[in-house]
Amino acid sequence: MERIQLTEDLSFSRIIHGLWRLGEWELTPAERLDLIEQCLELGITTFDHADIYGGYTCEGLFGEALALKPELRERMQIITKTGIKLTGDFHPGQKLNYYDTSKEHILESVDRSLKELGTDYIDTLLIHRPDPLMDPNEVAEAFVELKESGKVRTFGVSNHTPAQQSLLQSRLPFMLVTNQLELSPVELKHFEDGSVDLCHENEMPLMAWSPLAGGALFKDAELSPLRDKLEEVGKEIGARDIDEVAYAWLLKHPARIMPIVGSGKIERIESAVRSTKLELSREQWFEILKASRGRDVD
Amino acid sequence: MERIQLTEDLSFSRIIHGLWRLGEWELTPAERLDLIEQCLELGITTFDHADIYGGYTCEGLFGEALALKPELRERMQIITKTGIKLTGDFHPGQKLNYYDTSKEHILESVDRSLKELGTDYIDTLLIHRPDPLMDPNEVAEAFVELKESGKVRTFGVSNHTPAQQSLLQSRLPFMLVTNQLELSPVELKHFEDGSVDLCHENEMPLMAWSPLAGGALFKDAELSPLRDKLEEVGKEIGARDIDEVAYAWLLKHPARIMPIVGSGKIERIESAVRSTKLELSREQWFEILKASRGRDVD
Amino acid sequence: MERIQLTEDLSFSRIIHGLWRLGEWELTPAERLDLIEQCLELGITTFDHADIYGGYTCEGLFGEALALKPELRERMQIITKTGIKLTGDFHPGQKLNYYDTSKEHILESVDRSLKELGTDYIDTLLIHRPDPLMDPNEVAEAFVELKESGKVRTFGVSNHTPAQQSLLQSRLPFMLVTNQLELSPVELKHFEDGSVDLCHENEMPLMAWSPLAGGALFKDAELSPLRDKLEEVGKEIGARDIDEVAYAWLLKHPARIMPIVGSGKIERIESAVRSTKLELSREQWFEILKASRGRDVD
Repeated sequence: MERIQLTEDLSFSRIIHGLWRLGEWELTPAERLDLIEQCLELGITTFDHADIYGGYTCEGLFGEALALKPELRERMQIITKTGIKLTGDFHPGQKLNYYDTSKEHILESVDRSLKELGTDYIDTLLIHRPDPLMDPNEVAEAFVELKESGKVRTFGVSNHTPAQQSLLQSRLPFMLVTNQLELSPVELKHFEDGSVDLCHENEMPLMAWSPLAGGALFKDAELSPLRDKLEEVGKEIGARDIDEVAYAWLLKHPARIMPIVGSGKIERIESAVRSTKLELSREQWFEILKASRGRDVD
Repeated sequence: MERIQLTEDLSFSRIIHGLWRLGEWELTPAERLDLIEQCLELGITTFDHADIYGGYTCEGLFGEALALKPELRERMQIITKTGIKLTGDFHPGQKLNYYDTSKEHILESVDRSLKELGTDYIDTLLIHRPDPLMDPNEVAEAFVELKESGKVRTFGVSNHTPAQQSLLQSRLPFMLVTNQLELSPVELKHFEDGSVDLCHENEMPLMAWSPLAGGALFKDAELSPLRDKLEEVGKEIGARDIDEVAYAWLLKHPARIMPIVGSGKIERIESAVRSTKLELSREQWFEILKASRGRDVD
Repeated sequence: MERIQLTEDLSFSRIIHGLWRLGEWELTPAERLDLIEQCLELGITTFDHADIYGGYTCEGLFGEALALKPELRERMQIITKTGIKLTGDFHPGQKLNYYDTSKEHILESVDRSLKELGTDYIDTLLIHRPDPLMDPNEVAEAFVELKESGKVRTFGVSNHTPAQQSLLQSRLPFMLVTNQLELSPVELKHFEDGSVDLCHENEMPLMAWSPLAGGALFKDAELSPLRDKLEEVGKEIGARDIDEVAYAWLLKHPARIMPIVGSGKIERIESAVRSTKLELSREQWFEILKASRGRDVD
């Protein structure tokens, strides 16, 4: 599988596996290990986590599987995130979900992620959401400390606007390596608001979350024109299902978008992998865009 | 007529003639030549084309006239555009209009423009619409090749946002020379969204398409307050008709806006030329702004 | 009271007193002097004016008081603004309010402000509103002339978008020192549109006008959830009233926001001063944000 170079020393697999719903798949540790190994065999070596996934449980479930075969660690890249504090058992008494990008929280969060994942380094740490209270100097201090200690190798953001990304970048002694955004044939806004353009300008590859619109692509009534078009184009290019076409639509974009596949079913993951062999024409790409927007280009 | 310097070697006439509707005017080649010569006599030396105008026919109609007096070429500047592929006879089997800023398409499109126009160089080539699939490296390769071959002297964009313009500029070894935007007393959005500000900051003059809102200014019922105000101000400053006032409103702006007159009638073109002698006061400029917005400034 | 450093030689008090409504308070010159002295005793040394406040009267009312004790001038910083021309007796025959950032108007306006205020220098001059007709070269000429003559020491903007601020900055041989924006727990838009981010990135402190939403916070029915939350949090942190909490909410932001207190009542001013001793937790800050937006963070 194609690899995307983020720094001289770090590359991601073009397709990334997302562990958001790992808890929902109800797998035994051995089954989780099996899933990880199947991903690796398919060339998917990059795994996307966040401290909060599954109510703070998914990192631990992954770490439990990895502990069964620790030598796999060096064959994969682990992304995790920090910056959100959720209500619930993990934070008794907390009244609402909020963001926390204080140095203290970032350091604590990473230490916990390392422990849960059973690893001694994170490949890439992302700030999960733009925090209106972010002190970029404080984030920079935390990042520098994490980098120097070897706990985290590279840093990025998620869901950040160009202004927010630029503010944080301005205080860092190294470049942010990615911005993880919601990007799909359904969710076009970041293609239009300058977010994709800025990353493209800075030669920063993008990660795409919900590349299938969280499943809405398969069932929502108002998406039926788009679904029909994906099916039509899929037949033309030899795709087996519409998710392949949706991934291929993202892969065609020259900004180097890395879709995150968030499924525990190997056949869905294989669809994503097959999509990397598909080639949409420009005309087909714009047909899908038109079906999503409901209008021609100007 | 005032000239606007775009580079050391290239200037445009403040008023530009637009050939969008050349096909609709049903002129003989001699009549077309006559129109061109009348423009030149009025000081309008810059002509705005696009490959697609008139369903890929307008460049050829212009070239046919120019062939009757080829020595005029050196007295004019020719702008044309690339990047849109229209359905129709020119592209049999094409299912929808879409954008194509591939190197291959840009080079082919320019070669055809040169042939149709009957010239061996384009003064300024614009990317017609922001292409969400644009690979700026590929556009840069095409531009550099066109510049080195002498086929195109300078390059610009049209309808590009600041982020899109900045993305393309970042890959070019020379400066883009203009952004052609829809700007008029009716269409204010680019004065407010940063597009005009960015060009102004970069000292890049702007071209204004539809400076009379495609004629809506003269007839749309909801524009009657604006029309009345243009008439009132026109009387105050000695204008003969409201189009002069609309042009003068654009000319007053310090970002150096060059209105494109898209008429085949010499009297409308003369109105545009007369507007360059008019001087609106700040108060009058804001009266027109207020009539368009329907509200006072804050 | 904490001071915010704007340049090597200039700092503002964290709380600024605003004279917008000075005319409405119907104070005698001695009472006005008393108000000024009470502010100074509280550590509020920075006073925010504009040429147009009170229909061009407030600067004069302040100057009249200052004339009773001219030695106070050196203990305070005076901000004033230019760039708006209001209709009314001051401009007989003028048909509408409009903006004027011509060099001529800026110079005239400052000369009048100096005379009205009874001082020979302004600490900081702001362009009051973004003028769509602004010629940044002309503003730069005016600013340089004012700086060299000693009439104005530093310059800033008010209500400017990032693009407008960047355009003006690009022509200046010195840095703008502040952007005065509407910022409050009610008015969140500049926290989201990149305005606060840009200033934060440039390490430019912000001034907040209408930090209490012009009083709406105390009475508007649709603001009752926010008002209730401010009261609740106020009890938790020992505030005496909700305006203290609203100020503390702004003060917590790391971009260094300086709220402008626009009251003539010493008890309201004291509330603002007390707010500087309050410390909101992150959770409380986000509780207020949520009450204002009516929704959780993503």
